Amino acid sequence: MTRPCITLLTDFGLDDSYVGQMKGVITTINPDAIVIDLTHDIRPQHVLQAAITLADSLDAFPAGTIHVVVVDPGVGSSRRAIGAEVGSQKFVCPDNGLLSLILRHEPVIRAVQLDVPQWWRSGMSSTFHGRDLFAPVAAAWSLGRDLSEFGSAITRPLIELPIPEPVVRPTGISGTREIEGHVITIDHFGNLITNVSRNLLPADAGGVEIAFQNTAVPISNCYADGRAGDVVALFGSTRRLELAVVNGNAAEQLSAGLGEPVAIRWKEVDC
Amino acid sequence: MTRPCITLLTDFGLDDSYVGQMKGVITTINPDAIVIDLTHDIRPQHVLQAAITLADSLDAFPAGTIHVVVVDPGVGSSRRAIGAEVGSQKFVCPDNGLLSLILRHEPVIRAVQLDVPQWWRSGMSSTFHGRDLFAPVAAAWSLGRDLSEFGSAITRPLIELPIPEPVVRPTGISGTREIEGHVITIDHFGNLITNVSRNLLPADAGGVEIAFQNTAVPISNCYADGRAGDVVALFGSTRRLELAVVNGNAAEQLSAGLGEPVAIRWKEVDC
Amino acid sequence: MTRPCITLLTDFGLDDSYVGQMKGVITTINPDAIVIDLTHDIRPQHVLQAAITLADSLDAFPAGTIHVVVVDPGVGSSRRAIGAEVGSQKFVCPDNGLLSLILRHEPVIRAVQLDVPQWWRSGMSSTFHGRDLFAPVAAAWSLGRDLSEFGSAITRPLIELPIPEPVVRPTGISGTREIEGHVITIDHFGNLITNVSRNLLPADAGGVEIAFQNTAVPISNCYADGRAGDVVALFGSTRRLELAVVNGNAAEQLSAGLGEPVAIRWKEVDC
Repeated sequence: MTRPCITLLTDFGLDDSYVGQMKGVITTINPDAIVIDLTHDIRPQHVLQAAITLADSLDAFPAGTIHVVVVDPGVGSSRRAIGAEVGSQKFVCPDNGLLSLILRHEPVIRAVQLDVPQWWRSGMSSTFHGRDLFAPVAAAWSLGRDLSEFGSAITRPLIELPIPEPVVRPTGISGTREIEGHVITIDHFGNLITNVSRNLLPADAGGVEIAFQNTAVPISNCYADGRAGDVVALFGSTRRLELAVVNGNAAEQLSAGLGEPVAIRWKEVDC
Repeated sequence: MTRPCITLLTDFGLDDSYVGQMKGVITTINPDAIVIDLTHDIRPQHVLQAAITLADSLDAFPAGTIHVVVVDPGVGSSRRAIGAEVGSQKFVCPDNGLLSLILRHEPVIRAVQLDVPQWWRSGMSSTFHGRDLFAPVAAAWSLGRDLSEFGSAITRPLIELPIPEPVVRPTGISGTREIEGHVITIDHFGNLITNVSRNLLPADAGGVEIAFQNTAVPISNCYADGRAGDVVALFGSTRRLELAVVNGNAAEQLSAGLGEPVAIRWKEVDC
Repeated sequence: MTRPCITLLTDFGLDDSYVGQMKGVITTINPDAIVIDLTHDIRPQHVLQAAITLADSLDAFPAGTIHVVVVDPGVGSSRRAIGAEVGSQKFVCPDNGLLSLILRHEPVIRAVQLDVPQWWRSGMSSTFHGRDLFAPVAAAWSLGRDLSEFGSAITRPLIELPIPEPVVRPTGISGTREIEGHVITIDHFGNLITNVSRNLLPADAGGVEIAFQNTAVPISNCYADGRAGDVVALFGSTRRLELAVVNGNAAEQLSAGLGEPVAIRWKEVDC
């Protein structure tokens, strides 16, 4: 059997030992697990940011990877803790919308409410389910246990956050259409990443133009496609439209933030 | 034999490659070791913060884990380097107080001064014992070597920092008592964590009240127990009293810092 | 066969999941690889800082370690992607100067341009070669593949950045010489690390004096060699001359930055 892979995605930061404690619990139960950090720098309690990061990361992991996602402002309250198989991947997390983006594209194979205390850490706290509930369940799951052992099947649907969708519409100019989307996340380099996926744009679209902050921005293939300081637009590694600055930081240079609108316009092909 | 676990706790940060170099040395000696970061964001040279973090993290790790702790302002001076078995865990660190909190609750089984250069890295520096002394000794220890091989038995006691203890006393109001403690650490979420452990409070204490900044704060079970912005108090994952803000940051909202006092009052049960 | 070691050095930061995605790709291909982070906090697009960090870290890793270095402002443009054996270590990176410091001291054993798409990730992006090209090639190489499988032999020399060298010269005072160097990196503790290596100073140099900001600084053996707040100079763990403040932060206390000059003067021994 190949070594199982477990990822961790939280808002715990790395300045405390919280993440280290989760890894200690996992390695106690399954020392053969490969544990990989997605990131622990989700803004505190920002479920939507974690949901986007999770959805954008999955492709890089082998089928059967167990993703432990703990952005959990409701820890200790009545929110459900869940285990789920969605598409080819596995998830252990609070039921607060963290799987929202994934659920739009992948089917739920099975889901349970994690309500069998036998798998929890003894001395369970009401404030740190990452260490005391999610980590030990993920570790036991990685040993080959069946999901049904960890809890009762879920009947009520999983919680999904309302996520603003890009709008596709005519522009008013004959034969042209546009997508209006907006910035949903900003990465370490200051690249402005939008909710406009490449597949929304017809493969045969001609004369594609990007408009951002009332300025036309050319479509590029890579970050170096221009002179230092130029604003460029491209479909990035997540297949989302991004605005970037060559050798620079778009968020700073454009004073741009989350929610800012972007438009893509193109000519329809006559048939 | 199960794979041995080594943790790292330092003030090195992650912006240099110092931590990576320690891991390179460990993996050269024992590629089967599981190496887990507790945190590397201890404030530079802040031994007490590291001692608290270490003590609060141990429960999550298997017996026999080797903890490498390098907050070491005296590196290269006459301070001792030590290896120690305390309770069921193992430690490799400078003798400067890093084990202070653990020594109050757990017995020293064995301790040596790490004075056998055979185990050190060749080309030993006077400034980076984390890489050149502590990492190679921990890695060799994880291979099953006996602690006595690394140095001579210690006769002088290990250094312990003076740690302010909470005070339990009558309040002046008949039949009530109080604990006065204070904030000893602030976590990534801005939770104010105090030196008041749950076990200081009698199990049958009635009418428990928390006073912080001249305001009464209710005792809660979890961070979500209130409305967004409410100040709550709870015994957290370390079993210490914490002050928190629902969906917020207590340190910022209350402008509170290390050392700030907190009081818990309760009614004694008549017998 | 011992488990292979792969290091990662990037400017990706840890606030996104980019590094986690690279690890997911590696573990999919070779779950037995030991993956170690050097650092991901290189300043964005700062190739020289990465080149220095890489050169200063190599000694801590076993021969045959594969170093994946991705500071890559030209990703997706015509810059070459390379695999190289230099000295006893292996490298996978863009050909933009990242190996500059290493190439001055170690011979290139073999080098190829990574131009065989079979080893790349399917759905190759033009913006994230760390995940789509460098990680999968490194993982396949760690499985024992031969470097020549990944690309065609390189004929044009690898790119080397111009790196300012310290100057050794007479001082004008009879019988004394000096080295003028400058600060090339500043670490997490605020230590000012210069380009003056210990081996530039004759072993028998007498009366060594350091001058920094028009002040004489004594040579010390360790950071604790003085009173808190004292400025000291020492040859640190990289064998480079460093300026430090005992229990403090030299960069802050001295308001010093990259490029600031330092001089070492000594008396020549009469023969």
